[in-house]
Amino acid sequence: MTLVVQKYGGSSLANAERIRVVADRIRRKHAEGNEVVVVVSAMGDSTDDLIALAHSVNPEPDRREMDMLLSTGETVSATLVAMALDAQQCPVVSLTGPQLGIQTDRSHSRALIVDINTDRVHAELNRGRCVIVTGFQGVTDEGDVTTLGRGGSDTSAVALACALEAPRCEIFTDVDGVYTADPRLVPNARLLPEISYEEMLELAQRGARVVHARAVELGELYSVPIEVRSSFHERPGTLIHRGGAMETRKRVRGIAHDTDVAKITVAGIPDRPGIARSIFAPLAEAGINVDVIIQASSIEGLAEISFTVSRADFGSALEITNRVGQELSGRVESASNLAKVSIVGTGLQSTPGDAALMFSTMAERGVNIDMITTSDIRITCVIDATRVPEAVQALHDAFELES
Amino acid sequence: MTLVVQKYGGSSLANAERIRVVADRIRRKHAEGNEVVVVVSAMGDSTDDLIALAHSVNPEPDRREMDMLLSTGETVSATLVAMALDAQQCPVVSLTGPQLGIQTDRSHSRALIVDINTDRVHAELNRGRCVIVTGFQGVTDEGDVTTLGRGGSDTSAVALACALEAPRCEIFTDVDGVYTADPRLVPNARLLPEISYEEMLELAQRGARVVHARAVELGELYSVPIEVRSSFHERPGTLIHRGGAMETRKRVRGIAHDTDVAKITVAGIPDRPGIARSIFAPLAEAGINVDVIIQASSIEGLAEISFTVSRADFGSALEITNRVGQELSGRVESASNLAKVSIVGTGLQSTPGDAALMFSTMAERGVNIDMITTSDIRITCVIDATRVPEAVQALHDAFELES
Repeated sequence: MTLVVQKYGGSSLANAERIRVVADRIRRKHAEGNEVVVVVSAMGDSTDDLIALAHSVNPEPDRREMDMLLSTGETVSATLVAMALDAQQCPVVSLTGPQLGIQTDRSHSRALIVDINTDRVHAELNRGRCVIVTGFQGVTDEGDVTTLGRGGSDTSAVALACALEAPRCEIFTDVDGVYTADPRLVPNARLLPEISYEEMLELAQRGARVVHARAVELGELYSVPIEVRSSFHERPGTLIHRGGAMETRKRVRGIAHDTDVAKITVAGIPDRPGIARSIFAPLAEAGINVDVIIQASSIEGLAEISFTVSRADFGSALEITNRVGQELSGRVESASNLAKVSIVGTGLQSTPGDAALMFSTMAERGVNIDMITTSDIRITCVIDATRVPEAVQALHDAFELES
Repeated sequence: MTLVVQKYGGSSLANAERIRVVADRIRRKHAEGNEVVVVVSAMGDSTDDLIALAHSVNPEPDRREMDMLLSTGETVSATLVAMALDAQQCPVVSLTGPQLGIQTDRSHSRALIVDINTDRVHAELNRGRCVIVTGFQGVTDEGDVTTLGRGGSDTSAVALACALEAPRCEIFTDVDGVYTADPRLVPNARLLPEISYEEMLELAQRGARVVHARAVELGELYSVPIEVRSSFHERPGTLIHRGGAMETRKRVRGIAHDTDVAKITVAGIPDRPGIARSIFAPLAEAGINVDVIIQASSIEGLAEISFTVSRADFGSALEITNRVGQELSGRVESASNLAKVSIVGTGLQSTPGDAALMFSTMAERGVNIDMITTSDIRITCVIDATRVPEAVQALHDAFELES
């Protein structure tokens, strides 16, 4: 008997008909002789609806109360999936995060999982039941409900698979899997049958929102393979796992993009120790997430630091940077309509030709590169957001990803 | 410092504006130096919406799953009330039934409260916080969520007031309190400033849906006075308590009515022991609640039994009774468009004149009485449903309840 952990996202549970389809899929897995544990997200847009409701009574809701409110969304979908399975004569029980015993720290709205008590799950599986678990939520040592942050249901599913030592975690979503590029931009983008954790992490963090990066990290840490696939058909998706055909495969595996990028530059500031801190400490205090950071080499003792933030944080980040820039007698410039385009693949580091191919492809199209950053397995260019579709298609062609 | 327990119904919490009004009322109570514990129902019709959602995936949802699903409604309203209080700078925390420790038996959908752990409530009150509690729900010894049945939030509130030894439980609703008759039928109906538990029980069970009978019973058992009042204005409502001006007040306190009555009669059946059981045991097995039962005196060794059920149960009750009637060689008759009209008041038993006045009032109007039942403090007539408005007004006038 194999233990299967599955996760279904909100779009797969958006209405009664889809819930019945999901229940049918779970029932079949159970009928094949598997032990089945299923993690569910809230239905469709119901989390957004609850957030709107909260803001209608308080523009800045307390995070503990907000977590308790939002957790109801997953409870609703978990009980409905259980009822739908029951209607198909499949033995089933639903468990909330607190009931199951998903222990987290007390960081409301972005809690970290501390431990998972698997006793109740094992007891229910031993009774022959499917177990439907509310994703996204846990409980503190004080009995308060916490949430893991947006996309947290992926994390719940992989964490449960780790705790239960399941051989695999299946994440069902509304896309077919991980593509070489966004199929909406690149019609000949190809579904990747497999990808490494590292590559998926870079893709996820650089704009490919198929599976949450935190879930991928957890899968890597515990060596639990994650399969991302569609809940709307039976075709296999993408297996995220360790290794694979290590040397023989293509180095560049996919193109990621993210059009939510704003840039701020502080120029003409003294090039001395502590300068970076004086800029970034106030941003961190304001809770602003800074992404790409580049410090240009010093000219005549004056430094230039550029960084990117999401467009939502742009206004407050600019305000803070203007204040700091004034104190440092620097010059602040900004641009809000930018995007990141990245090529991702293991071993990029050892093949300088890939970087050259990326830059020359952009140059041929007349796409100006604003910033460049690299990691071991990724090269990212910040460009004008309007050029993204063209750039992604051109890179996809240049690296021959369609074949 | 006085401990105040309040309960707000769904119509008082139907939208953000009403939630803010409720929060303002709670805040003022807290600012006056009281310890405030508030029990809330689900917003507006949200419980009905959840039931419809459940039925869309399963026509007969499992009761454990249903309880967990429905419990989310009260969690949503509790967190929103807490957020609204927080917006008014009033210290507050929300607690679910399981978090607070409202222990019940395992009878899902109609659970009975076994015990209430008041530790967490006291701890939060000691920290100066208002405590918002989800009504209608509790938790079993196994950690499963239960619900107390419809109207259960009233019961939660009174039970909490009992457990916390509060001097009073205030139930805020969308009506002004308890009237001498339904003000929609009787324009000159009068708000009762006070009423005894027993009288309120009879009124509640005979159609006056202001406060749930089970809550009144609990209040009587623990001698906790219950005030029923409107959340839409500041005027006092009706105090339900023990005693009052015992001998000097009017004997008839109010007129109740219930237009959801169907009658089934089995005539010409053998008058022997076990006959009643053979009729009512199958109805009980089918979960059908039988209200008024009358067995007419035997004529020529043949008996006649009549009983009433709600209109929702009429079809299945008739089917079962037809089957039983056939076995007993009896004759089954039925009528579905009936109603109950009752006069309620302590001491009715000792004043036969009240019954006579009731019957003659009906006779003067040409209202035919189909069945009569009485208790110590109530006389009920079953009549044609179409005659209810006229009968209630006539009785209200005859017993001079407007003054």
